[in-house]
Amino acid sequence: MTTVNKRILLVARPGGGPVKPEHFRLEEAPVPACGDGQVLVRNHFLSLDPYMRGRMEDMKSYAAPQALGEVMIGGTVGEVIESRHARLKAGDKVVGGFGWQQFGVSDGTGLMKVDTTRVPLSAYLGAVGMPGVTGWYGLNRIIEPKAGETVVVSAASGAVGSVVGQLAKAAGCRVVGVAGGADKCAAVTGEFGFDACVDYKAGRLYDDLKAATPDGIDGYFENVGGEVLDAVLKRTNAFGRIAICGLIAGYDGQPIPVNNIRSVLVNRLKIQGFIVSEHLDLWPQALKELGTMVGEGRLKYRETIADGIESAVDAFIGLLKGRNFGKQLVRLI
Amino acid sequence: MTTVNKRILLVARPGGGPVKPEHFRLEEAPVPACGDGQVLVRNHFLSLDPYMRGRMEDMKSYAAPQALGEVMIGGTVGEVIESRHARLKAGDKVVGGFGWQQFGVSDGTGLMKVDTTRVPLSAYLGAVGMPGVTGWYGLNRIIEPKAGETVVVSAASGAVGSVVGQLAKAAGCRVVGVAGGADKCAAVTGEFGFDACVDYKAGRLYDDLKAATPDGIDGYFENVGGEVLDAVLKRTNAFGRIAICGLIAGYDGQPIPVNNIRSVLVNRLKIQGFIVSEHLDLWPQALKELGTMVGEGRLKYRETIADGIESAVDAFIGLLKGRNFGKQLVRLI
Repeated sequence: MTTVNKRILLVARPGGGPVKPEHFRLEEAPVPACGDGQVLVRNHFLSLDPYMRGRMEDMKSYAAPQALGEVMIGGTVGEVIESRHARLKAGDKVVGGFGWQQFGVSDGTGLMKVDTTRVPLSAYLGAVGMPGVTGWYGLNRIIEPKAGETVVVSAASGAVGSVVGQLAKAAGCRVVGVAGGADKCAAVTGEFGFDACVDYKAGRLYDDLKAATPDGIDGYFENVGGEVLDAVLKRTNAFGRIAICGLIAGYDGQPIPVNNIRSVLVNRLKIQGFIVSEHLDLWPQALKELGTMVGEGRLKYRETIADGIESAVDAFIGLLKGRNFGKQLVRLI
Repeated sequence: MTTVNKRILLVARPGGGPVKPEHFRLEEAPVPACGDGQVLVRNHFLSLDPYMRGRMEDMKSYAAPQALGEVMIGGTVGEVIESRHARLKAGDKVVGGFGWQQFGVSDGTGLMKVDTTRVPLSAYLGAVGMPGVTGWYGLNRIIEPKAGETVVVSAASGAVGSVVGQLAKAAGCRVVGVAGGADKCAAVTGEFGFDACVDYKAGRLYDDLKAATPDGIDGYFENVGGEVLDAVLKRTNAFGRIAICGLIAGYDGQPIPVNNIRSVLVNRLKIQGFIVSEHLDLWPQALKELGTMVGEGRLKYRETIADGIESAVDAFIGLLKGRNFGKQLVRLI
């Protein structure tokens, strides 16, 4: 077995500009030793997520910034390859947060053993992981969809959006996605079973959204920000609910102007932001439901897998530009 | 007694532009006859409210537009001067919605008999009326203030804002008003007892707001829209709540750009619009609390009274420009 642990550190902050390769440094370190009471985990997949963009800046946010000179944070799935731990044993598959690196040691804190019999390991970083729970929470706890309502989902082909739409569809809603490009839209209505999908790159965002939501919009799951939110605000029905879990449009520090805030009053809307990690009490319920649905083939997902840790930075920059399709992963072994 | 009922009709719509005198017409009609089962009411005061601006347009909103050629809608207080009604008798003081006119007949529907022993009749259009309940609802049901929190109120010297601030202060909060001009600010901190007031006309809105909210902002009562909302969004604490009951800044159809929507995510904010007339079940409780406080001198209010129905249009235009101080009324007799 290799004795080298390739890992990627954050070494500079974008300072409000776009993310560039020079903000990171790939380095080789020794594989850490497995101490008493610890496990050594070989990470198979790293999850790349939009929230990482926020952590790169030293600004007021809901989480502390990523420290410079340290391994970038990130969710991982892998296998225990050495154990001096009472509960976990070699061969166990685990979800953890080892960050952008190939190996990690842990005393078990923050590690969750998972069953890969019916759910592939990588799905625990997607539909049956943080993105899936994000969709589950925002839909069920903020939007609270009722059968017959219309729910719109931005970034609909993404790891979160595709879950939101399929859950809303299962709840009896008319579900309309917003995605970038004909290919993504085809998957949204085909593979993921949405009733319609609006291609925001086609240049007719509002008109197309209007046509796709003849009865207005009751719920909106916001992953993007910017003009999609404004278009949705013009179509909301009375007592609509908007869950905001991400605003990719503003990650580089650009303002995200919203012009139709008047709709909040006129339609008595509720807009609520949330961070899924603050609702850990609901994760077991959400993961159980999501895992069951994936296992039974009722919840579909797509993955974009970059090969090798050397490709992580490019994949992350691509994610921020919407170049991925579904859950963006990096294969680490 | 006069046999003439002066009244003001809406005869044209602003169509997104400013309200002008030519949108209205003053006319004289006969005082209506009091039919069987009816009362004839002489209106003492007419309430002028920002919501009327919305009704002047033929657009999608939470209420039907004001019909052209009809008497403008509006809340009124007055006295029953003739009764053929089982419950109401001559001399009774009533709150109603007779609109911009001096007299009205009613079968009692929508009329509420009030006690003017300790609460002046006009206050039933302000602090102990719709504006007061608006403040009560937004504060208690959306902001839900906790002692020690900081609550900011826009249009703080107005009929709604002054109530919000005094109730929040009674709830143990630090209360900061936003108002236009030194005179209004002096009343906000003096007469109404807010801890601080930011003069948005002074040109240092964000800096002054920051200085007045050293611990950030937990609750915001939105009466205005525009740059105040943006400044507040930059100061909100985690899990802040924003109640939106009015957006005067956008009544003439201007866009109300909001640039700091990112704060909704970062701070997991809840923003909720509401219309007080949809919560009639809470009015008795709210009116009782407000009436008690006014009667005991613990809830103060200001009124700007225009004399004579002939002055109603000018007074309304002034209200939309913020020229009033406290509740804008028109004395009709």
